[in-house]
Amino acid sequence: MRETLIRLREAMAARGADLVLVPSADFHGSEYIGEYFKSRAWLSGFTGSAGTLVVGRDQAGLWTDGRYFIQAERQLSGSGIDLYRMGQEGVISVEQFIARQLPQGGSLFFDGRTISAFQAEALRQLVADKNGRLVSDQDPAGWIWQDRPPLPCGKAMLLKEEYSGESTDNKLRRLREAMAEKGAQLHLISALDQTAWLLNLRGQDVLYNPVVLAYTLITPQQAILYIDERKLDDPMKAQLNHSGVCLRPYDQLFDDLRQLSPEQCVWVDRKQVNCAAVAALPQGCRIIDEVSPIVLWKAIKNPVEQENLRQAHRMDGLAVTRLMFWLKKNFGRMDMSEISVERQLLDLRRQQPHFLEESFATICAWNANAAMMHYSADPEHEVKLEGSGLLLIDSGGQYLEGTTDITRTFALGNISREIKKLYTTVLQGMLDLSAARFLYGCSGINLDILARGPVWQLNLDYQCGTGHGVGYLLNVHEGPHGIRWKKTPSLSEMQRLEEGMVVTNEPGIYLEGKTGIRIENELLVRAKEKNFYGQFMEFETLTLAPIDLDAVDPQLLTPAARKALNRYHEEVRNTLTPYLNEEEAAWLKQATRPIGEDEAC
Amino acid sequence: MRETLIRLREAMAARGADLVLVPSADFHGSEYIGEYFKSRAWLSGFTGSAGTLVVGRDQAGLWTDGRYFIQAERQLSGSGIDLYRMGQEGVISVEQFIARQLPQGGSLFFDGRTISAFQAEALRQLVADKNGRLVSDQDPAGWIWQDRPPLPCGKAMLLKEEYSGESTDNKLRRLREAMAEKGAQLHLISALDQTAWLLNLRGQDVLYNPVVLAYTLITPQQAILYIDERKLDDPMKAQLNHSGVCLRPYDQLFDDLRQLSPEQCVWVDRKQVNCAAVAALPQGCRIIDEVSPIVLWKAIKNPVEQENLRQAHRMDGLAVTRLMFWLKKNFGRMDMSEISVERQLLDLRRQQPHFLEESFATICAWNANAAMMHYSADPEHEVKLEGSGLLLIDSGGQYLEGTTDITRTFALGNISREIKKLYTTVLQGMLDLSAARFLYGCSGINLDILARGPVWQLNLDYQCGTGHGVGYLLNVHEGPHGIRWKKTPSLSEMQRLEEGMVVTNEPGIYLEGKTGIRIENELLVRAKEKNFYGQFMEFETLTLAPIDLDAVDPQLLTPAARKALNRYHEEVRNTLTPYLNEEEAAWLKQATRPIGEDEAC
Repeated sequence: MRETLIRLREAMAARGADLVLVPSADFHGSEYIGEYFKSRAWLSGFTGSAGTLVVGRDQAGLWTDGRYFIQAERQLSGSGIDLYRMGQEGVISVEQFIARQLPQGGSLFFDGRTISAFQAEALRQLVADKNGRLVSDQDPAGWIWQDRPPLPCGKAMLLKEEYSGESTDNKLRRLREAMAEKGAQLHLISALDQTAWLLNLRGQDVLYNPVVLAYTLITPQQAILYIDERKLDDPMKAQLNHSGVCLRPYDQLFDDLRQLSPEQCVWVDRKQVNCAAVAALPQGCRIIDEVSPIVLWKAIKNPVEQENLRQAHRMDGLAVTRLMFWLKKNFGRMDMSEISVERQLLDLRRQQPHFLEESFATICAWNANAAMMHYSADPEHEVKLEGSGLLLIDSGGQYLEGTTDITRTFALGNISREIKKLYTTVLQGMLDLSAARFLYGCSGINLDILARGPVWQLNLDYQCGTGHGVGYLLNVHEGPHGIRWKKTPSLSEMQRLEEGMVVTNEPGIYLEGKTGIRIENELLVRAKEKNFYGQFMEFETLTLAPIDLDAVDPQLLTPAARKALNRYHEEVRNTLTPYLNEEEAAWLKQATRPIGEDEAC
Repeated sequence: MRETLIRLREAMAARGADLVLVPSADFHGSEYIGEYFKSRAWLSGFTGSAGTLVVGRDQAGLWTDGRYFIQAERQLSGSGIDLYRMGQEGVISVEQFIARQLPQGGSLFFDGRTISAFQAEALRQLVADKNGRLVSDQDPAGWIWQDRPPLPCGKAMLLKEEYSGESTDNKLRRLREAMAEKGAQLHLISALDQTAWLLNLRGQDVLYNPVVLAYTLITPQQAILYIDERKLDDPMKAQLNHSGVCLRPYDQLFDDLRQLSPEQCVWVDRKQVNCAAVAALPQGCRIIDEVSPIVLWKAIKNPVEQENLRQAHRMDGLAVTRLMFWLKKNFGRMDMSEISVERQLLDLRRQQPHFLEESFATICAWNANAAMMHYSADPEHEVKLEGSGLLLIDSGGQYLEGTTDITRTFALGNISREIKKLYTTVLQGMLDLSAARFLYGCSGINLDILARGPVWQLNLDYQCGTGHGVGYLLNVHEGPHGIRWKKTPSLSEMQRLEEGMVVTNEPGIYLEGKTGIRIENELLVRAKEKNFYGQFMEFETLTLAPIDLDAVDPQLLTPAARKALNRYHEEVRNTLTPYLNEEEAAWLKQATRPIGEDEAC
């Protein structure tokens, strides 16, 4: 049995805890979490990004999804923790497990800062059904985790208006207007990217996401930023102070909330904010439980951000284009591995001005590995690019000019007609969605089939959404919109597409054990002709890098898609050529050549 | 001022009514209503199908939608009734009008049988806000309407199982199982097509809709049919009795409901059933307020119905094909008018076996008239088919083998390249939707853009749904599904498409004052390959009649659409030729010839 589990149970016994719940979460509902917050991984030994651990006196379970079944089985082997494969038939849920394991009058412990107020409600009900006790002001991992990494303390920075496009003062003014309209005196912001957007503040506290670990409490006069002050230098403090932002220690939030007057009306999104914060509000406080308006404002890029994004994509596209040139030139002439290609791409991005870091962990996957949508190459077991096939690279960068996310799948060596057919099908879908024209009011749910339809025609499916929003020098996955066909609880597929939103367009085909294809461009939603019928909308493609014609069968594309591809390649060529040397430019000209129906394939 | 209005106000004064509300409705929430129910038209003089009249002591208003603004303005002129144009900016709603006009403590009268329980709730609230009185057991039109037409009393018939595909006994058994599952002892069915489907009963009480005016109350042992017995002959009565159906007078329902034991649990859809019926339920009755399962069962055609529908569409397509032949042969050689073409088509349908009546009022519209989506040719002002142009014909039939709905737009004489472009765009959309393949779980909202996208590409829109469900020898508009892109309160666009559902596919382009184009085929939802990704679905096209190649520019179609059109025409030709004489067959061969990209246009 795993040592940490034995010690946790000793600590539980000492404190009278019957059950302990440990999710994979920081205090802000973030998608990526820092090392300090990885309690679940430390306790269980399972290191995947998603999972929930529940430990009882005799039994322990870990819940994770299909991406991690194999990894979790391996890592949990011999730990004394049972694996519960979420989504498989007959597998009970975390809640069902708790309901079964919790004795009458028993106690359930969890860290209230790691569970949203909305989720906590369901747990509270489960415990109440057993006349039990819910203890949410303890950090079970903290009882025994001695060499725990500290809370992150990266240096922060303030974005100039030439990058943000809107001053903090103006954003605060807009937010207070929205609060006044709802009758809210206070608005608690817990999501890290919301604080970052509002205060034009960026940091280094979370890998890939340039955010700062902080809460913000907005009052009619002040914005109180709960943060470790060491992250800010004096000029930044002065500038924040000038915008009416005052600083308090990160963990003082809870005490401050308890001191609020119960007559106040507080706007707090219970699905987003942790239950410890909501529990700290005085009894009698009126709560407006709605999504913060920042979610939508942040998703709609302002004209400065839009123009900057075009620059970010020029620089990012240049890096990917140079990688493609390097691959095509050197494949078969030098040893390559997934990891070495990944490093080469990072080197090329680092040569770009204003590049800060990658926007997520690069997926660089050769042939069968590309069938795993969330594949991550293991540096200790390098996969060489041997023989022929497809190399799928999904990657992105954080620049002062914005965040990028691009996937290209490259043909290296000879590939079969069948693979070309699949590749061309994915490309057809990608081009069809990019060329959409639609009336204002459409959501992702209306448009998804444009990208997915060609894949469905082959009786295949890529089993995930077609696209997600992207932040501006923020999280690469950003709501509230998305392009999906299924009705989901998140409802991102029902969010109207507004001018200025950015969304990815990334259909694919994944054949287990064989190959994976994904082609991804980022799209900017633009308003076009307005007439009797309404406001027509279109997409502007932001991403600029060639699509590998070596894998395209032109005869399988519709005439409109061929034209669209040729136009796109012309734009890539015209935009990037000035940055290239002669050899690169000559290659790019060939790589972006116009194709007709009869191009040999 | 209109005479009826003066007399209504006298009657109101005598009864202490401050406001009277008269909707356009029968007692069953039907789309088409019989003459007896046309109180609103009789009182106001406005004869359009949709409208609500509210009469106060001094003011009176009529609400209708954009289809009828011109007609209503003309018909209401001098009546003393103000026209309220629904959907126009600044126009108040019926509810707002009532709130303004109803004096404190005043009374609002309406016939509770013509308003759903759900709608009545909102009115009840309005009146309560004024401490007023709501009187719903009076029929205001009945006070003064002396020569009112009688309730319809058409002969009914029972469908044999070779037409219905499922016995009444079996349907009743399924329904009782569903009731038991919900814990309901009673289920009140008010929608006429639900009673018709459940009891395999058809009638002649409503023009175009072969239903019988009746309510059905289902108990665990009995099905009580509230109906005018004169509609049924003795063998029918015996057969119904054999299925446990007992007969009671139509208007006895309300007394019977009042006699129910208050311990009963009643399943009644408050959005469908009228408020008089719901109000008659004893206090304390538990109500299950959900849509009847019949709605979905009725929409899913069983294998017998599906096979019959194919036959109905062969016969109906033959009539439309012969009309096309007649038009193409005789246009320019004989006088034609919208009305004469309409008659010709009806004559051709009447020659088909098992044809009963039209399934809705034929729209036969020449050139600019075709821009009006709900145009109806006026026999008193015949429009001659002169010059050249497009003739849009939207029509359908009721057959023992099912209900049809088809639109064809024919080119007569020379038409311009521009018109061909529009026509081909509509055709492209119609063909794209017909060729859809999609995973089970998709709704109309996912698919709408396949038909609408090509029209949107021209910065045009047809401003209505793409398709609606169709009954089986029942209403031509049938829920619960539909193909629409907008989220509407009806949610038909969110209803999953199930195998066996029938849906129309009818994109169009309407240019006011110029022309209108619509091409409509009916589609049957079919389950195809099931694999790792899920259950793939496709459409089978039911409608069989040529699409006018004289209006198609083949170069503007995608290669896939050209192929699909050629395949479709081949099927039309192969299926219909055996029924045609030599001259017709020779013409059909030419009319359904395969087209290539280079076909002269």
